[in-house]
Amino acid sequence: MSLLTPAMEALVAEFARLPGIGRKTALRLALHSLGHREEAAALAGALKRLAEECRFCKDCGNLSEEELCAVCSNPRRDAGLICVVESLPDLLAVERSGDYRGLYHILGGALSPLDGIGPRDLRIAELERRVAGGTVRELLLATNGTVEGDATALYLVERLRGADIAISRLARGVPMGGSLDFIDRLTLSRAIDGREKLQGPEG
Amino acid sequence: MSLLTPAMEALVAEFARLPGIGRKTALRLALHSLGHREEAAALAGALKRLAEECRFCKDCGNLSEEELCAVCSNPRRDAGLICVVESLPDLLAVERSGDYRGLYHILGGALSPLDGIGPRDLRIAELERRVAGGTVRELLLATNGTVEGDATALYLVERLRGADIAISRLARGVPMGGSLDFIDRLTLSRAIDGREKLQGPEG
Repeated sequence: MSLLTPAMEALVAEFARLPGIGRKTALRLALHSLGHREEAAALAGALKRLAEECRFCKDCGNLSEEELCAVCSNPRRDAGLICVVESLPDLLAVERSGDYRGLYHILGGALSPLDGIGPRDLRIAELERRVAGGTVRELLLATNGTVEGDATALYLVERLRGADIAISRLARGVPMGGSLDFIDRLTLSRAIDGREKLQGPEG
Repeated sequence: MSLLTPAMEALVAEFARLPGIGRKTALRLALHSLGHREEAAALAGALKRLAEECRFCKDCGNLSEEELCAVCSNPRRDAGLICVVESLPDLLAVERSGDYRGLYHILGGALSPLDGIGPRDLRIAELERRVAGGTVRELLLATNGTVEGDATALYLVERLRGADIAISRLARGVPMGGSLDFIDRLTLSRAIDGREKLQGPEG
């Protein structure tokens, strides 16, 4: 028999469904909510509001409250360059770098036959449609450096072979501040292959 | 400028107010809620339900949907023995041990002058009232083994000096499965002082 009341038990169960939150943490969160009723009400309200208000940009798939998101509707962004990412957190990471002034395209995942995720499960047809529109000059493939991310990038290159655009990929190499001692040999091998010349005769 | 929509930003902020949840985890939880609308609605509902239905037992301070909680209203529990704990998680821990058949009293914290928590901020007057009721035979002080928990236990002994009841404290010593090498010297010193005789002349 659980000692918790049914309402408390239900809340613990709901918190425990969130990713990375186990039963013990869920209990701690539920007790916190019990002791902070105002915060709990605000959280419930925010969840409800998100469900009601949040939509996705029809072009790039970014979060939006309008038809087009803040990036796509910004006339100062370069509409000729599209950065293709797997998910919203990846878009936020690229945006945080501060250097990127183009638009985005969120695929909604990466190809993963083992998980049953094929090309139709990603927003690839939407990407083709944007490329066919004619304003796109370059696609920057910024899928993750995983097997799935790499496979997705290769697939996109193959699928867009006919289009008259440049396709690039994020540079691979040693991360800033990374100690060689702690870097896997594949990354190091790629960094050596892709070494940047600092001085010497033109090649 | 945040790239998130206001509704998303609000939800991230609310998740980040929960204890032990930082901005990055909050974003992950909010994105999960966005992708799992049904779960998000269920969590919002559970939070609302807790605020509406959950009360505290008027005797012990435990969670309850009635005036008295499931423990206090159980006629098979020993009403002569009250285990005094700081918080609900502590009550659940004692209950999990499976050995305890008495009632509880939740203080709602421990004395901590540095944090401005004095005797009036705890449910001590309620405890005195229960003791004065006459059915209580023994109080088992099960406050935490911290400075504040110890101080609270000492304070309760002092305050209830006049009452004709037994007052006990949880035994201190080496935890089950605990390796002596990893136990702090204070605990070990207490375990030596309170050693249990296994054999030998009566002392």
